[in-house]
Amino acid sequence: MKNQEIPYKTYLTEQELPTAWYNLRADMKTKPAPLLNPGTGKPLTAQELTPIFCEELVRQELDNDTAFFPIPDEIRDFYKMYRPSPLVRAYCLEKVLDTPAKIYYKFEGNNTSGSHKLNSAIAQAYYAKQQGLKGVTTETGAGQWGTALSMACAYLGLDLKVFMVKVSYEQKPFRREVMRTYGASVTPSPSMETEVGRRILAEFPGTTGSLGCAISEAVEVAVKNPGYRYVLGSVLNQVLLHQSVIGLEAKAAFEKIGVKPDVIIGCAGGGSNLGGLIAPFMGEKLRGEADYRIIAVEPASCPSFTRGVFAYDFCDTGMICPLAKMYTLGSSFIPSANHAGGLRFHGMSTILSQLYHDGLMEARAVEQTAVFQAAEQFARCEGILPAPESSHAIRAAIDEALRCKETGEEKTILFGLTGTGYFDLTAYQQFNDGLMTDTIPTDEDLARSIAALPKVSVE
Amino acid sequence: MKNQEIPYKTYLTEQELPTAWYNLRADMKTKPAPLLNPGTGKPLTAQELTPIFCEELVRQELDNDTAFFPIPDEIRDFYKMYRPSPLVRAYCLEKVLDTPAKIYYKFEGNNTSGSHKLNSAIAQAYYAKQQGLKGVTTETGAGQWGTALSMACAYLGLDLKVFMVKVSYEQKPFRREVMRTYGASVTPSPSMETEVGRRILAEFPGTTGSLGCAISEAVEVAVKNPGYRYVLGSVLNQVLLHQSVIGLEAKAAFEKIGVKPDVIIGCAGGGSNLGGLIAPFMGEKLRGEADYRIIAVEPASCPSFTRGVFAYDFCDTGMICPLAKMYTLGSSFIPSANHAGGLRFHGMSTILSQLYHDGLMEARAVEQTAVFQAAEQFARCEGILPAPESSHAIRAAIDEALRCKETGEEKTILFGLTGTGYFDLTAYQQFNDGLMTDTIPTDEDLARSIAALPKVSVE
Repeated sequence: MKNQEIPYKTYLTEQELPTAWYNLRADMKTKPAPLLNPGTGKPLTAQELTPIFCEELVRQELDNDTAFFPIPDEIRDFYKMYRPSPLVRAYCLEKVLDTPAKIYYKFEGNNTSGSHKLNSAIAQAYYAKQQGLKGVTTETGAGQWGTALSMACAYLGLDLKVFMVKVSYEQKPFRREVMRTYGASVTPSPSMETEVGRRILAEFPGTTGSLGCAISEAVEVAVKNPGYRYVLGSVLNQVLLHQSVIGLEAKAAFEKIGVKPDVIIGCAGGGSNLGGLIAPFMGEKLRGEADYRIIAVEPASCPSFTRGVFAYDFCDTGMICPLAKMYTLGSSFIPSANHAGGLRFHGMSTILSQLYHDGLMEARAVEQTAVFQAAEQFARCEGILPAPESSHAIRAAIDEALRCKETGEEKTILFGLTGTGYFDLTAYQQFNDGLMTDTIPTDEDLARSIAALPKVSVE
Repeated sequence: MKNQEIPYKTYLTEQELPTAWYNLRADMKTKPAPLLNPGTGKPLTAQELTPIFCEELVRQELDNDTAFFPIPDEIRDFYKMYRPSPLVRAYCLEKVLDTPAKIYYKFEGNNTSGSHKLNSAIAQAYYAKQQGLKGVTTETGAGQWGTALSMACAYLGLDLKVFMVKVSYEQKPFRREVMRTYGASVTPSPSMETEVGRRILAEFPGTTGSLGCAISEAVEVAVKNPGYRYVLGSVLNQVLLHQSVIGLEAKAAFEKIGVKPDVIIGCAGGGSNLGGLIAPFMGEKLRGEADYRIIAVEPASCPSFTRGVFAYDFCDTGMICPLAKMYTLGSSFIPSANHAGGLRFHGMSTILSQLYHDGLMEARAVEQTAVFQAAEQFARCEGILPAPESSHAIRAAIDEALRCKETGEEKTILFGLTGTGYFDLTAYQQFNDGLMTDTIPTDEDLARSIAALPKVSVE
């Protein structure tokens, strides 16, 4: 059944846990475009960003040159409670697929947040605490980021106010209880608690919300309350920096077992998992030391890479955030509530957008029934019940492995299994009952939201 | 903050995974009393048990002498998907409690069943498959056992029919979806699908069910359907045998870091986790090679050890199962639906009952609000959201650590963290909302159910 030399799970020791995060930007020839002030159209300065973000995080956000940022001991200690995470050889999935491909996944779900989000949550909470802040605000979609941040804030004794996308708030009531157990307050977004929330509700009374709306509300509350800053679980350069711990561990684990992946696959919403997973591999590729096929997988219902444009856009629906140059569907795009995944963001990390634009990675969109078919197949043989987001990567990994079966290629595939689906059982129930459908935006939908991009996009 | 020499998590390698289960009975001077045929009052023979249980499992059930049963390679391969499980040093909890005690927990929650139940589920499903059966039936309370068994059956391609205690079926609808995702059918118990279910519903129309009822239904279906057998997630000797993998790993991990526990704590419903965790340690104690304080923690709402009697009783409410000599509240005892934990069984493992009777271990009962206080405290510093069942052990471990703080003793405490609470958020919500109460049976309640014990109990 298996090559006895390679274990099911490869763990690094706690001593082998990375001591520094890797900043992929340092090796990019074309750097990601800077964030712009929407008022002036000029690159945002550290001074302009510090009312929103913690000082150290602003420094990390703007630094395109420093390759390594040391991980503070306190954060490494926290990491040790759930890291290093295992690199798993999917022996059972390979057998079920009857493929010559070797499939590995880096599993980030063995912690209460249920995902990789905790890697950046503890870092951001730590710097907020270091700065002497009272608390932080944030948004959450599927709830993984909010849960992660509530864990980090409870650990450090920081106050936390979460705006949760309304559709997820309703579909995932138990996520709210996890966050409350960790002491956070949770508000469905859009809400009447903020100006931007009231404005969005007046314009779209029946809206089920989006990450973009929730970001606007969380930023407003952070800016208006002394002693608070805003933190974000994806998209930003600082988040990809922290998430590089995933890729650094994966690479070290591969080296331990003497294996090199050919194809690296990750789901992409805002890009935090994919950016973290690929970081050191893409670094090698950028430096010409190795080559890898890298594939971003996004939902067909929110296809930023595959059907969006590469342009400056707002990161939030309320248009109060900075402008980022990224693959975007337009900040007014609100994906169908029908889609079960938490990959409902109209834009994408500027780092990943630039890499994709430069032809350094591929992207594909997959439909959700096919995603849940892959999730079920994976669960039944590998045991783990995957999150819908992660299952996008599973779908693509299975498709690649089946392609290898046709061609006879013995490719080594790595995919990011970002988390577990324990709080996504409403979606699994829909799937089990045969009631799941696919909703894909029409060309007209996309043309409309893309036409509404801010003027600066033509620069 | 911590002794750098001992890691947060100690993992064995896959090569170090135990190759045999340890049968505690082999070292017991007074063996657990045999199961009796309720009709004849005589010890049950293998021949009488094989219509209910798989043949190899009957052999394991009745063997009081063989110390080690080799773990088949196929089961070890399955174990490798989620084992060895970590032995965790609770540095953060120690710091929060400001105790000189050293606290360790063996964490069994890092798998989709969310608990240690998978250790026996895969073993029982494997032997059913080996015997050429079509499928198995079982009961589940909180749903952890049912989930575990559905994972094992999906992996091996066995049919599975689960009777789920009605109160849990309603409180934990998502558990049902996990089981369905793994292809199992799930029926709330008591149901109209069995004779015993119809009888219980006629007598107690509003009943929310109990493990005892669900066992009766599952056994009836197994016995009446050719190609099916019944499997059980706790209480039985065979289950404690399989669960010894927990204790064997824990002991090996302690040896790896050169530590020896003084106190070992586990929650006790039917005894599967506790019996597995303590097995090799109790073995040393029985052979006079070492001494340990061993503490069983049970819910005050279902206090078999602390308020029950040591007597022969039915394992099920329907009184169709064999009689077991155990600490029992009487098979007609139905614990309050108010209690959130899955420790709602009127009886107890015959092995643990005998050990307790012989003064080899202690027991204590704890109330559920105190249990959830411990759960919340643990979650906030150690990150893991514990199952209510496991939190009984956390409560006792914290109490022991606080006692050490008073006396200044530097005891080493090990407790079993059997699983996660991701499907117990209804109970956490009650707790978060301040609506949780404690329900403890009155002396009259217990006197009534104990008076109804079968006649053989006076032997």
